[in-house]
Amino acid sequence: MTVTNLEDPQDWRLIVAQKRKQLHSQIPSAWRLSDSFRASLPTNGHLLAFDAIAKSNILTPEELDLTENYTAGQLLQRLAWGDVSSLAVTTAFCKRAAVAQQLTSCLTEHFFDRAIERAQYLDDYLKREGRVVGPLHGLPISLKDSFCVEGVDTSVGYVSFLAHGPAKKNAALVQMLLDLGAVLYVKTNVPQTMMTGDSDNNIYGRTLNPHNTTLTAGGSTGGEGALVALRGSILGVGTDIAGSIRIPALCCGVYGFKPTTNRIPFSGQTSGVMEGVPGIVPSAGPLAQSLDDLELFVSTILDASPWRYDCAATAAPWSRSLALSQPRQLLTIGVLGECAHFPLHPPVARALNKAVDALKQKGHRIVYLTPDNRTNTTTTTSPSLSLATDLAHANRLAFQYFIYGPHTDHISPSGEPPVPSVTKASSPMFTGPLPVSMGETVPTFTLIDDLHKERQKYSDAWRETFVTFDLDVVLAPGAQNTAVEWDTFGWPPYTVVWNLVDYPACMIPYGKASKDLDPEPMMVDDGVQPSYHPDAVDGAPCAIQVIAPRFHDEKCLAAARIIDRDLRL
Amino acid sequence: MTVTNLEDPQDWRLIVAQKRKQLHSQIPSAWRLSDSFRASLPTNGHLLAFDAIAKSNILTPEELDLTENYTAGQLLQRLAWGDVSSLAVTTAFCKRAAVAQQLTSCLTEHFFDRAIERAQYLDDYLKREGRVVGPLHGLPISLKDSFCVEGVDTSVGYVSFLAHGPAKKNAALVQMLLDLGAVLYVKTNVPQTMMTGDSDNNIYGRTLNPHNTTLTAGGSTGGEGALVALRGSILGVGTDIAGSIRIPALCCGVYGFKPTTNRIPFSGQTSGVMEGVPGIVPSAGPLAQSLDDLELFVSTILDASPWRYDCAATAAPWSRSLALSQPRQLLTIGVLGECAHFPLHPPVARALNKAVDALKQKGHRIVYLTPDNRTNTTTTTSPSLSLATDLAHANRLAFQYFIYGPHTDHISPSGEPPVPSVTKASSPMFTGPLPVSMGETVPTFTLIDDLHKERQKYSDAWRETFVTFDLDVVLAPGAQNTAVEWDTFGWPPYTVVWNLVDYPACMIPYGKASKDLDPEPMMVDDGVQPSYHPDAVDGAPCAIQVIAPRFHDEKCLAAARIIDRDLRL
Repeated sequence: MTVTNLEDPQDWRLIVAQKRKQLHSQIPSAWRLSDSFRASLPTNGHLLAFDAIAKSNILTPEELDLTENYTAGQLLQRLAWGDVSSLAVTTAFCKRAAVAQQLTSCLTEHFFDRAIERAQYLDDYLKREGRVVGPLHGLPISLKDSFCVEGVDTSVGYVSFLAHGPAKKNAALVQMLLDLGAVLYVKTNVPQTMMTGDSDNNIYGRTLNPHNTTLTAGGSTGGEGALVALRGSILGVGTDIAGSIRIPALCCGVYGFKPTTNRIPFSGQTSGVMEGVPGIVPSAGPLAQSLDDLELFVSTILDASPWRYDCAATAAPWSRSLALSQPRQLLTIGVLGECAHFPLHPPVARALNKAVDALKQKGHRIVYLTPDNRTNTTTTTSPSLSLATDLAHANRLAFQYFIYGPHTDHISPSGEPPVPSVTKASSPMFTGPLPVSMGETVPTFTLIDDLHKERQKYSDAWRETFVTFDLDVVLAPGAQNTAVEWDTFGWPPYTVVWNLVDYPACMIPYGKASKDLDPEPMMVDDGVQPSYHPDAVDGAPCAIQVIAPRFHDEKCLAAARIIDRDLRL
Repeated sequence: MTVTNLEDPQDWRLIVAQKRKQLHSQIPSAWRLSDSFRASLPTNGHLLAFDAIAKSNILTPEELDLTENYTAGQLLQRLAWGDVSSLAVTTAFCKRAAVAQQLTSCLTEHFFDRAIERAQYLDDYLKREGRVVGPLHGLPISLKDSFCVEGVDTSVGYVSFLAHGPAKKNAALVQMLLDLGAVLYVKTNVPQTMMTGDSDNNIYGRTLNPHNTTLTAGGSTGGEGALVALRGSILGVGTDIAGSIRIPALCCGVYGFKPTTNRIPFSGQTSGVMEGVPGIVPSAGPLAQSLDDLELFVSTILDASPWRYDCAATAAPWSRSLALSQPRQLLTIGVLGECAHFPLHPPVARALNKAVDALKQKGHRIVYLTPDNRTNTTTTTSPSLSLATDLAHANRLAFQYFIYGPHTDHISPSGEPPVPSVTKASSPMFTGPLPVSMGETVPTFTLIDDLHKERQKYSDAWRETFVTFDLDVVLAPGAQNTAVEWDTFGWPPYTVVWNLVDYPACMIPYGKASKDLDPEPMMVDDGVQPSYHPDAVDGAPCAIQVIAPRFHDEKCLAAARIIDRDLRL
């Protein structure tokens, strides 16, 4: 497909219409929702509570079982034993993803035929050779649109990028997943620019939140969030530069993990930015329905020599010694509560408090890094703690990293308009000035070096905080809010800080917003961040975030597992 | 000390005179060389062959034994058992370092009193507590001048930096070594600018090569090279941005290891450069008399959580799985021979060929990445291999990284002149043009991004080469030449390439230059690189270099050990 006439303002609409027609035609008619079923959907948009996928009657009982009742690890065992075929598993997830797409617009490109052919190949291989291709043999895995898959478009929601034509080469991770035996079947939706909390663009439309379609599914890996929540994928891969894995996980009530950068191979994606300019480095990582599956993904990739696929990927293997040694170990947990500039919505504060109380009761040691919002006491203080917990500063520094370099506009070339969440251009600048002086008179090299020094100073404050208080992990909110009404998500202050310092961070779904428990609205008047509307977000998932120091991905996941277990026992 | 009058051209000489007087006064008179001993030294400058340290009669037989007959690992065992005191070991190395300094000017700052006090403290601790402070308990370790040690000057050979006064804080690695129980006693000499192959500056003078004082000891960690060669240190720490650990190791006939960047904590050093500007990142690593001790250093540091000391240090622990599993394993070794632009001196080619023949005979698989200079055959070829082996391109790219950013002149402010090796300003530009276009019209961000892309492409070529040919390691020359006459070392083409791609690299001493075996001079006429003068370098050590992919430090050292053993059996 090529953009034929950029001067014609109608042109981008034609291109999009053609793309949508192509994609629709790739969904077999037997997998399409009937008008009567569509009419039966609840008007409140609570698709998950309504059990919309099952009620669509498109999946067989066996397909519902395969997609609902196993972890990825369990499916892999069954696949390896030949207890179930990849064809069966792949067909089930293709059908479920097709239904999810029709309910929430969670997909970009999908290639079900190709997936089924691959599944058949893997089944034949297993039968013929008596062994699996690799540790992910036969498992369907979904990917954020940014990952290039040979022969498939990678537009990341820019109409202008459709002119690039299908990818000529697999991204490093894509090739790795294939070599490990995975089946690829869909790519998932993102925001135009990949820099907002709404996965909305002019090509693939807006991804809806399956908990409540009037709320955002989050961004930028929002399609993945909705798809995994609907179990249209058992394991999804996203990328995160400010919260792009964790925000959709939070909004859609699934688990998400942002690893330390370059442990999971990142190269070979489409982004439209100058990757060589020093800045916040994005990280690839998984979304899933369980911590088991997050760990399965990360450990499998790290043990399979990512360096062989991507010269920027580190060779540090999955470290059993960095994971915690004892399964029943008690943790020292630093609690990072509310930053005054970014007040927590009542359901978010409630979930965090409840988690802290439960963990305290299980015997974990709690260190309050910010005043406990109930007793107003902190455990102690130090200069590095004061700097580390100055989230407003950290957010402005992160923001400055995003804006200081050259910016290429990939929207205008096609004539498409910016989507609403892009037009809003949320930022944390309501909290104060840019940390580093810039402008015409500051040489670029000086600016780069000053930003670097400021970031090192901030990173060092977190290092010292972990060391001083002997923390295993930090427990923090994932955002000020739950999923909120479309185009109101604002700036992500509680996630981007961990990209700035490159610490691994895991989002754990925990609790739900409730208009009964938190009936009072909370108005946020900074002009950027969302207010709390009890009715609107009633029932939306809450989440907590678990953070470990840089390169302690193993420990982050192990601690998240302990915390998750102790919160649910 | 403060610089009082920068206008007075005499001033820098006064400052230097004062500094030298101070340092000389810190050497106890009993440790000073007599005029009669000095007169007895061989006129050919072959201090090691002459056994100058022993003949000085300054060390007791026990002190000679302690400094000559053990590895660091063996000394640590004896120290931990209380079989020998840290006071005895420290005194022995202080005395030996003091003699080495008088013979070769290998030291910058030395603080023997402080070291002896520390040793006494550690001995008392062991006696009182019945346990060691840490795994380096009681062991004296020497440091390149760039490492800040609280209370000690860190001038890195710039007179102007003496005005900074003593360091107020330990560098991250320094603090770590102290916490692990080490004794610090000396810092070692570097070139002015730390960017030449001659450790020569106007403050501490020129470090002489103890094999032959008419030859360079290498740079920039040249003081360490001479000191370790004379066994005035059992374990020295250097830094390497183009070969600064490996070149002195090669010149002085000791082992040296440049790890992947930021595995050994680097922060808190003095350099005088803008560290935030993207470029070639320096790496800290050890020099020693054995591979055992290189591994002891690296594994001890990596197992002791470097991230707790330096926010830039990775937390990847020493990985037993990345090291090779079997001690008798046969390796697949890629041989990177001569690049036509950088012809090898006959003793260097001879050492490499001899090593390859010996390894082949032991059963290792040899893959010629460049034509074997005897049969003119390569094993095979590929586009990535062609790019990877284009060392001239890699060197020009590395050079462009060194020059493209802003440069602060730290020489002029004091009025001192540049030393001869700095005046020469060697570069690889005789081989071709700069790889990336630059100049007034190229925006800085574009230049940064273009350099990044070019480096990624080159790094990717090496990744693909390792994968395609299933290499364990690459075996390469360490330099075109052995140690050569003062100020003629030129540009380091065979070491800087591994900094460009951030691969760990180990220098193994192997063989010696011989005017009998290689009687013909070889003239190099590129105006930059040294010619071969058989008489001048007769007896100088040769070395081979073992390289593994990024983050495979464990494998690099394990393979180096196998190669070293098989070469000597």
